[in-house]
Amino acid sequence: MRTVDWDSERESLRLIDQRLLPGELRVAVYRDYRQVVDAIRDMVVRGAPAIGVTAAFGMALAAMQSEAQNLPALQRDLTEAGKALIGARPTAANLSWAVERIWRLCNQPGADTAELRRHVLEEAHRMADEDVAINRQMAVHGAGLIQDGDTIIHHCNTGALAAVDWGTALGAIRMAHEQGKRMHVLVDETRPRLQGARLTAWELDQYGISYEIISDNAAGYFLSNGQARLVFFGADRVAANGDVANKIGTYMLSLAAFDNRVPVICVAPSSTIDLSTPNGAAIRIEERPAREVLDIQASGQQVAPLGARARNPAFDITPNRLITAIVTEHGIAYPPFLDNLPGYLSEIEG
Amino acid sequence: MRTVDWDSERESLRLIDQRLLPGELRVAVYRDYRQVVDAIRDMVVRGAPAIGVTAAFGMALAAMQSEAQNLPALQRDLTEAGKALIGARPTAANLSWAVERIWRLCNQPGADTAELRRHVLEEAHRMADEDVAINRQMAVHGAGLIQDGDTIIHHCNTGALAAVDWGTALGAIRMAHEQGKRMHVLVDETRPRLQGARLTAWELDQYGISYEIISDNAAGYFLSNGQARLVFFGADRVAANGDVANKIGTYMLSLAAFDNRVPVICVAPSSTIDLSTPNGAAIRIEERPAREVLDIQASGQQVAPLGARARNPAFDITPNRLITAIVTEHGIAYPPFLDNLPGYLSEIEG
Repeated sequence: MRTVDWDSERESLRLIDQRLLPGELRVAVYRDYRQVVDAIRDMVVRGAPAIGVTAAFGMALAAMQSEAQNLPALQRDLTEAGKALIGARPTAANLSWAVERIWRLCNQPGADTAELRRHVLEEAHRMADEDVAINRQMAVHGAGLIQDGDTIIHHCNTGALAAVDWGTALGAIRMAHEQGKRMHVLVDETRPRLQGARLTAWELDQYGISYEIISDNAAGYFLSNGQARLVFFGADRVAANGDVANKIGTYMLSLAAFDNRVPVICVAPSSTIDLSTPNGAAIRIEERPAREVLDIQASGQQVAPLGARARNPAFDITPNRLITAIVTEHGIAYPPFLDNLPGYLSEIEG
Repeated sequence: MRTVDWDSERESLRLIDQRLLPGELRVAVYRDYRQVVDAIRDMVVRGAPAIGVTAAFGMALAAMQSEAQNLPALQRDLTEAGKALIGARPTAANLSWAVERIWRLCNQPGADTAELRRHVLEEAHRMADEDVAINRQMAVHGAGLIQDGDTIIHHCNTGALAAVDWGTALGAIRMAHEQGKRMHVLVDETRPRLQGARLTAWELDQYGISYEIISDNAAGYFLSNGQARLVFFGADRVAANGDVANKIGTYMLSLAAFDNRVPVICVAPSSTIDLSTPNGAAIRIEERPAREVLDIQASGQQVAPLGARARNPAFDITPNRLITAIVTEHGIAYPPFLDNLPGYLSEIEG
């Protein structure tokens, strides 16, 4: 099944519960868009492309749930549902991108409520299918930057679990593997939620790609010793100037790569690029609950003293000066990103 | 009690078992130097100054255990014991520094075996007392760099638990607190063994100093947002040129501080400075077991997939270009360290 999957018979959304991997592969089922809001906030599903498509199906559920008898009432319900979905997590661009795409349907004249309900679900399906196609295309472009024998440091999870399928940075690594390139991945464990140790390692096991898990703070050691040739990660929002908001730790990883002249590759679909955001300073960074830091993996085993407080910013900004290239489904953008990024939003290569 | 404590009645070494804090304060008792080797390797005791003094008492135990009837035989036994103690952990300078100081006693002519046994124990006591005095002096120098109202990012544990008492970087913070300066400490949790979340947070609780725990990879976020004015850490070995070997993650933290013009302060006793090591590249970095990364806090709850592999370098090298000042018991050394450090090994200020 896909990470984000629609069950047509039961008219429900199915999500792999990513909080339980790798220990357990459990599928959660949703028929209420408000539960989908919670699922995004609680990170049952995470990864910018995945939560975008999840939100689109959440809108489809909201349309079905709505008891509106006329178009303006249905539009109001979808406006409300969309705001709740966008509000679930503030940083990823894909969430508002997906909701706004559904909202645009609502503004098309001429449909009745039954048609609009059907159109919303069809659009969500279209976005899911597009996500797979786009990610595959992005993977081909990204794989071109990988050479046989490379060791790559990878941050967070950016694979099939972070999207409908394939993913972003990890999709490129998987594509390079399918092309027969031998690679080794140093997997940043990615505190506090350990998406690297749990999810990326699990995916690499599935693909048969060699890897070792490292503490995030050890990446600098391997970079300074010449043990990694590339750094790969995804993005939650890319500003017009190429500043990248991505999982906390991306900035320090990029600094260490830059300090050792190791290329820093960001892989993200054009839906993650937000030309209306001029730079990283304009991106709102989500702070998540302290318990994610204090109580590792919600094990109930708190490592810190009782009563200890914590700060938990979920993302940081990597300034464009540290980024070597941004790979989208349309190709590879190089600096100056302010000039070059727009071309990779509209042009289709190949 | 002191972190490293001698029980005169029972002629045994007492160590706070730092693997169990903050959940449990348990004291481990040693009468066999070979168990002390294991205790250092397994990190019952850790922190460069603490393991130095622990090794000295380990030598005292070895002298008592030895059945040698003459001086050459006792010297041979102490040579063997010292090598085992130095071999327990390769990176910290203090381990060999302490053992070599005991070895020098053995080479003094004229003592009989009973006298040498007594001298070794006396020297260990002297080193323990000196450690407290040196650390207090270092704390005074370090506290002078801290201003009222500062927020400080601190890596690993460098407090009383890392020494006989007071410690290095955290000792300076504690001294500034006792001087009435208000501070807030952002505590790097310090993966993989979480010395920050467990030990530094515990100590700060004891001292009544305000703190919040952060993931190591979040330090860059707070530095780039202007939320920290200083970075403080200790050292396991300082090379002649000022390159610092310290707990894994120190390099990436220092890069992030440097990138945001935040001063990087290393606090270490002169016993940590090794003029015979020209630079960081000459320092051997210990790699520790993968399970420390995979199985958080030896909880038995492995976060990564079964069979996952990991790399676990325990230290990294922070190049001197990133370090603003090195504080020893003799004062504050500034770059160029190659010229200036030797003065802070011999001169006594104040």
